[in-house]
Amino acid sequence: MAGPLDGVRVLDLSAVVVGPICTHVLCEQGAEVIKVEAPTGDLLRHLAGRGRSAGMNGKFLNFNRGKKSIAIDLKQPAGIEALRRVAATVDVFVTNIRPDAQQRLGVDADALRAAAPRLIHCSITGFGSGGPYAGRAAYDTVIQGASGVAGTFAASTGEPRYVPFLVADHTVGLVAAQLIGFALYRREKTGIGEAIEVPMFENMAAYIMQEHLGAASFRPPLGPPGDHRVLSPDGKPLPTKDGFVCISANTDAQAHAFFDAIGRPELKTDPRFAKVAQRVQHTKEYFHIRATSLGGRTTAEWLEIFDRMDVPASPYNTLSSLIDDPHLRAVGMVREEDHPTEGATIAIGAPNRFSGGNTPPRPPAPRLGADGAAILAQAGLSTDEIDALRHDGVLIEGMP
Amino acid sequence: MAGPLDGVRVLDLSAVVVGPICTHVLCEQGAEVIKVEAPTGDLLRHLAGRGRSAGMNGKFLNFNRGKKSIAIDLKQPAGIEALRRVAATVDVFVTNIRPDAQQRLGVDADALRAAAPRLIHCSITGFGSGGPYAGRAAYDTVIQGASGVAGTFAASTGEPRYVPFLVADHTVGLVAAQLIGFALYRREKTGIGEAIEVPMFENMAAYIMQEHLGAASFRPPLGPPGDHRVLSPDGKPLPTKDGFVCISANTDAQAHAFFDAIGRPELKTDPRFAKVAQRVQHTKEYFHIRATSLGGRTTAEWLEIFDRMDVPASPYNTLSSLIDDPHLRAVGMVREEDHPTEGATIAIGAPNRFSGGNTPPRPPAPRLGADGAAILAQAGLSTDEIDALRHDGVLIEGMP
Repeated sequence: MAGPLDGVRVLDLSAVVVGPICTHVLCEQGAEVIKVEAPTGDLLRHLAGRGRSAGMNGKFLNFNRGKKSIAIDLKQPAGIEALRRVAATVDVFVTNIRPDAQQRLGVDADALRAAAPRLIHCSITGFGSGGPYAGRAAYDTVIQGASGVAGTFAASTGEPRYVPFLVADHTVGLVAAQLIGFALYRREKTGIGEAIEVPMFENMAAYIMQEHLGAASFRPPLGPPGDHRVLSPDGKPLPTKDGFVCISANTDAQAHAFFDAIGRPELKTDPRFAKVAQRVQHTKEYFHIRATSLGGRTTAEWLEIFDRMDVPASPYNTLSSLIDDPHLRAVGMVREEDHPTEGATIAIGAPNRFSGGNTPPRPPAPRLGADGAAILAQAGLSTDEIDALRHDGVLIEGMP
Repeated sequence: MAGPLDGVRVLDLSAVVVGPICTHVLCEQGAEVIKVEAPTGDLLRHLAGRGRSAGMNGKFLNFNRGKKSIAIDLKQPAGIEALRRVAATVDVFVTNIRPDAQQRLGVDADALRAAAPRLIHCSITGFGSGGPYAGRAAYDTVIQGASGVAGTFAASTGEPRYVPFLVADHTVGLVAAQLIGFALYRREKTGIGEAIEVPMFENMAAYIMQEHLGAASFRPPLGPPGDHRVLSPDGKPLPTKDGFVCISANTDAQAHAFFDAIGRPELKTDPRFAKVAQRVQHTKEYFHIRATSLGGRTTAEWLEIFDRMDVPASPYNTLSSLIDDPHLRAVGMVREEDHPTEGATIAIGAPNRFSGGNTPPRPPAPRLGADGAAILAQAGLSTDEIDALRHDGVLIEGMP
């Protein structure tokens, strides 16, 4: 059994999260991913807390499973030349370095596609090339602030803040993988590759506007932007006797079942709550009832009741309890694994299933430069050439 | 010019956001998307605030651009039969109805693929079929609570809450489109379709664990889960004299430039802040300095300074200011458009660019059932058959 991208080869000149999650997904579906790192390694090796050895923290491991690592000094011309020789042998090139740096290294779309017309070149940028912010550097928080992500918190609770995970990096990386899939599909029909430009700002601004342009989608606006149901400051797991429970009761059938469950059947005919349009008008009161009605029973009791009455509900998981969730264990999303150099770890599984075949679990994430010599040999470099690169400090094998 | 999915036909039996954002993306890249709605329409037509006419609010418009709408009563056998006839003519079938309901309607993967072996069937579920929560209903908040999304807020500020946008629906819908692209690629090679299962819980749990398993990735854990930099309660746009600015300063070069910019060059050699590993250890102090150092100048002044010194930075956008952002206007992400029935609106553009061809802007979102008769005729139903469906209230054309 093999995943849908079996046989696709990807060269990944990216770091931190936006590029690595893109190529993680490609790898999970069967692609071979060659990760190009700077001599000191992907910044994420240093930015994300403790591991058992330098540069091998948990966050790095979890975004880089199954990849091969080559560490090259791209400040030396021989390093650039080595990179270009590998690039000539792959199907897909992914990078999140700025367009001017791509040109300086000769790894922009025009340069690489001139030598390899079937190549799909994916450039993840901060801001699209057609507007005044083009070429500016961007990281997750910059994009969260510019695109309205932080603005959703201001509209909800009064204070702008960032989502406590890298939502811009992570989302746009997933989108980049999606676009590469579409380009691979087109290449099967046309025989030629192409260049894809994936600007983070535009993607996240579209995302937030789709969610929250709302009444301001009309000219003149019918009201301020923002979906007030989703922005409700009461948008929280609901407190029970011993914890929290998470519910959704949007349809009339679900809302009525909820009112029955909490022993308030009269609300089913209350003109504020009987129909979906009425509940949308009275979101504040409806959410207040939900937030203050569950204190008399435990989470387990409520889950049993909601399950029986067909109100969508689930337990609330903390970051710690998630690891022990019985469903995640049962489906193989959380399993124990020995890393060849880092010892016992938790491996995160692949969430999706293809009837036409799935990729078997990939090996754990690589140490810096672990596969450099093999990758260069596969690209046609001789043993002497590789030795010279090693000798000149162009090829790095292991954390300095 | 045409997008990479030009010629692909998609039948979409989904509602609210997780399915509609999936097919929105497919449509944006050139696919023809047929949206199947219940007689009263997609729940999102009623759940998301005001429009100029019933069922045509801004959120619905922004998730359903370019689609065709057919409204069918699937409680009547003739409605199911009509749906199955359309399904036999498409490349991709997307649904988020529960597996047992799919079987009852005969639109599960086995049933539809028996009649159309090239069909790609994509089932977005709440929880994967292999675990104890299989078959349970799920909506965005249920998944945010179960998957650790709400738990990231508890780890950051002490209180579990939901992200104020539909991050589970939106993310998993983007992933579903990605997986469909991979399956289309494989179909070009094998000639046969396949079934894809996309469980929301597993996808979002993987997402949060990749971000935050951290030190708990090791057995025994090296520490509690959570990337403390990203969970910092100071993870916010930084206050200036007249507003906020968003920055990122992760590399040594960026952090040193930031210290110079705020007139505190001595911090460049401070053992707490000189190197990335030291700043990670002293995140709290570092973030505190960032949050309290910018009050003396305006946002515009800081942006000019940060631009000059190569510190990634951007203005902070509210939901309102986003619409007027000059970059978004310049690249066509925000433009004025007349909806044929709803009047003057804002249209959100397509964020990504393919050198091999892009889809021209799609028409605005449809009214309920606007294309029903044409879709049935295209699937081979005769005028008499269509009239009979109309007469029996199986085919609905317009909001009741």
